[in-house]
Amino acid sequence: MSINAKTGPNGAGSNLRRSTDSLIRHSRSHFDAAHFHGLMALYARPSTGRAVVLPHEGERRVVDFVRCSYLGLDNHPKIIDGAIEALVKYGALHWSCARTRLNFAIIGELELALSELFDARVIAFSTVLAANMSALPLIASGHLTGGAKPVIVFDRLAHATLAYHKGTLAGETKVETIEHNDIEALETLCKKHPAVAYICDGVYSMGGCVKLEQLRLLQDRYGLFLYIDDAHGISIFGDNGEGYARSQIGGSLGDRTIIAASLGKGFGASGGLLMLGNDHQEQLFRRFAVAHAFSASLNVAAIGAALASQALHRTPELQNLQLELQSRIALFDCLVPTEQRGSSLPIRTVEIGDELRAIAAARTLLNRGFYTSAIFFPTVRKGRAGLRICPTAGHSEGDITAIGEAIVAVLEEFEQAGVGTNADFKR
Amino acid sequence: MSINAKTGPNGAGSNLRRSTDSLIRHSRSHFDAAHFHGLMALYARPSTGRAVVLPHEGERRVVDFVRCSYLGLDNHPKIIDGAIEALVKYGALHWSCARTRLNFAIIGELELALSELFDARVIAFSTVLAANMSALPLIASGHLTGGAKPVIVFDRLAHATLAYHKGTLAGETKVETIEHNDIEALETLCKKHPAVAYICDGVYSMGGCVKLEQLRLLQDRYGLFLYIDDAHGISIFGDNGEGYARSQIGGSLGDRTIIAASLGKGFGASGGLLMLGNDHQEQLFRRFAVAHAFSASLNVAAIGAALASQALHRTPELQNLQLELQSRIALFDCLVPTEQRGSSLPIRTVEIGDELRAIAAARTLLNRGFYTSAIFFPTVRKGRAGLRICPTAGHSEGDITAIGEAIVAVLEEFEQAGVGTNADFKR
Repeated sequence: MSINAKTGPNGAGSNLRRSTDSLIRHSRSHFDAAHFHGLMALYARPSTGRAVVLPHEGERRVVDFVRCSYLGLDNHPKIIDGAIEALVKYGALHWSCARTRLNFAIIGELELALSELFDARVIAFSTVLAANMSALPLIASGHLTGGAKPVIVFDRLAHATLAYHKGTLAGETKVETIEHNDIEALETLCKKHPAVAYICDGVYSMGGCVKLEQLRLLQDRYGLFLYIDDAHGISIFGDNGEGYARSQIGGSLGDRTIIAASLGKGFGASGGLLMLGNDHQEQLFRRFAVAHAFSASLNVAAIGAALASQALHRTPELQNLQLELQSRIALFDCLVPTEQRGSSLPIRTVEIGDELRAIAAARTLLNRGFYTSAIFFPTVRKGRAGLRICPTAGHSEGDITAIGEAIVAVLEEFEQAGVGTNADFKR
Repeated sequence: MSINAKTGPNGAGSNLRRSTDSLIRHSRSHFDAAHFHGLMALYARPSTGRAVVLPHEGERRVVDFVRCSYLGLDNHPKIIDGAIEALVKYGALHWSCARTRLNFAIIGELELALSELFDARVIAFSTVLAANMSALPLIASGHLTGGAKPVIVFDRLAHATLAYHKGTLAGETKVETIEHNDIEALETLCKKHPAVAYICDGVYSMGGCVKLEQLRLLQDRYGLFLYIDDAHGISIFGDNGEGYARSQIGGSLGDRTIIAASLGKGFGASGGLLMLGNDHQEQLFRRFAVAHAFSASLNVAAIGAALASQALHRTPELQNLQLELQSRIALFDCLVPTEQRGSSLPIRTVEIGDELRAIAAARTLLNRGFYTSAIFFPTVRKGRAGLRICPTAGHSEGDITAIGEAIVAVLEEFEQAGVGTNADFKR
C-alpha cells in the first residue's frame, strides 16, 4: 500500500480546494427548476437556418440562440460533404490507438493545412477539453519555459476545462488565481517570480475578452508565458479566421504563447486544436501530451469536415460571414441593452438577478419560439443569473429583431407584474 | 490577487505530486529513438483487413497490430454506413453547445439503445478521457456515496486518464494509491474508513484485468464503491458485448458501481460512455459532469456509427466475432510465449528489457511487415520495455501465424547476435 506524503510546491499550508460537493449543493435546486421547466437537455432535430424542431414539444419549431456556431457554419453543405467524403474515401471512422502510434494520413493533411492557415504549428485534438488537459501539465513541467517551472496563474474566469486542473498542477508547481483581467496583480507576480505562465480565455464564454496588448507588454518585459483558450474567438476574427487572439499577434507566435481553439463553434466542424510556436513545443506535445498519448484522435468525419471548413476559410465567404455576424450583433445591440453592447464579440448576457426569475424568463422566451441559455451559478455568480444569447451569422435579421423584441417584452412584463430584475432594458 | 491557503483533506504534510518534468526527462531519449526509427506517429491509409499503407515508406503495406479494434469492427461497412446516414439525415456534424442545453435527438436514441443493450443507464461522451474526467470529481463529492466523501483509492496501474486527476481530487477528499490488484490493502482501507471508492481498469491496457469477484465481496461487506474503466473490455465479452466488467455483474448495476467503456476499440465506432446504476446517478451526471456541462458532445458521425454497431451487437455476428477473436488469441499463444498466455484478454506483451533493444525489435518487425507498439517507460516500468501486440478478430490466421513466427525469429536473431533480452521465446 502506498501513500504519498511529501509537501508540494504550494507549501504545507496551501491547497487548491475543489468543491464539487459545494457546487452541487448550491446549484442543484436551480438545475432542477430549469429541468422542470424544460430548459435543459433538449433533444431536437435541425430545421432551416438556426431553427430546431422539438419532438417532445409536439414538433414545435424554435429559433436557437444557444449554439456557438457564430458563423452559422455547422450546417454548411460543403462542410458536411467534406465529412461524408472523408468517410467514403477511408472506409473508416476511427482507429483505436494513440496518436503517438498510428494516424490517418488525412489528419496529417489537416494539421498541415491549419498550420499554414493560422501561421502556427497546429495539433488537432478530439475536443478543446482534451487540448487543455494536455497543455497544462506540460506548461507546469518547465519544459516550455526554459527548464524553470513557472508559477501558473489562472484568470478567475478561465474556462472550467482549464480551472479544473488547478489541483493536479499544484502537485508540480505553484498555482495562483487572480481576479479577472487583473494585469496589475499579474505584473506583481511577474516581478516576484522568474517564470510565470498566465492561463486565460481569448473570448470568455459569458462575454468579455483577454487584454492581449497589455499581456504582450508583460511578455516582452518579464518573459511571461501565455496560454490562451480562444475557442470562442476562432474564425470570427482575422483575415484567415485565425481568431481573436492569433489575429492580434503579428508574425510568428514565438516561444512563449500557445493558443487553444475549437474546430467547432465559429469554425463549423468538430474538435479542438493547439497553435504552437516552434518545433521544440511541437515535439514535446507529440510525445507527451496526455490526450495525444492516451486518448483517441479526432474522428475521420470531423477531420473531413475541418478540411472543408479550412478551405472555405481561404475564400471570400469567410469575410462575408464575419461581416454578417457583426451586422447581426449590431442589430441585436440596437434592440437590447446589455453589458456587452457595442462589443464585436458575439456573446450577449442579460442579467436578471434572481435565479428563478432568469429561469422563468428563459421559459417565456422558449414559449415564444426562442431558445436561450438560462445562466446561473456556477456559470455566473450567485444572484447574478440571467440569459445568454449568441447571435450568429446564420440568423436572419428577422430572427434577431424578433428575439430582441421578445426579450424586451418579457422584461417589461416582469416589471409590470412587480417582478423586479437587474435588467436595464430601456433602450 | 487571491491565493488559496487552506489545508486540504490529505493533511498538511501530504501531497500527490505529479512529475511531468521527471517523466519527460526519463523517457525523452527513448521517444526520440523510437521516432528516429520510424516507429512513432505513423501516418497511413487503410488497406484490406488489418493492413495499412505507409505513404512515407514508399506506399509499403504492413499488417497493423497496434490498434485495439479487437473485433475488427473499425472498418465494418454497416458501421461506416451508419455514420454516413446520420450525417445525411441530420445535415450537420456537431452542435456547439453543452449537452446540458441542446442535443441532437439521435444521441438520445443512442443512449436509450445502449441502456437497453447493456442493462444500465448509459451516457455517451466524446471520449473515455472525458467520461473519466467527469466521473471522478462526482465520486469525490460524496454525492454517489450517500453524502460521505469517500477515500479514493487508485490501483497503481489505473489508466493514465484516471491517474492524471489525483491532484485535483486530493483538493476535495483523501486519495490513496495501492499496488496493482492489492485486495488486501484495499480491504484494510475499507475497514479503516466509512466510505471508500476504488478506481481501476476492467481490462488493463498492458495486459491483466480487475479481480472483480473479490471486489464485489468487499462491496457487499463494506459498501465499497467501484469505478471501473473497461474501455478495453467492451464488446469482446458478454452476450450483448456489455464488456468484461458488466458481464460479470448479474442483474442491475446497483448504486455502488459505475463502468466506463469505449465506443471505439472493440465496439468499432468512436467515443466513450458511462454505465450508471440508477436515476440519482444519471441526474447527477447530466447536471454536473464536467464534460456534459462544459465540453462537446459526440459528433453525429460517431453517434450514427455507434447506433449501427449496437444493432450489430444484437445479431449472431457479435458472438461469431467474439469466438474469432478467441481463436486468433489462442493461435498467437501457440506461437509466442508471453506473460498473458492462455488469457482470454486480447493484449499480449513480449518483454525485452532494454529500451533500445525493444525499439530495435519493433523496427525489425516493421521492416518485415508488422506494426507493433514498442512499449517503454512511462507505459511500463524502466528496464521492462518490450512489444505490445493486439491480435484481433479482423486478423486472418495467416496474419497471426506470420507475426508469431516473425517475433520468435527476431528474438532468436537477437540471441544469436549476443543481444540479451528478457524474452522467453522458447515455445
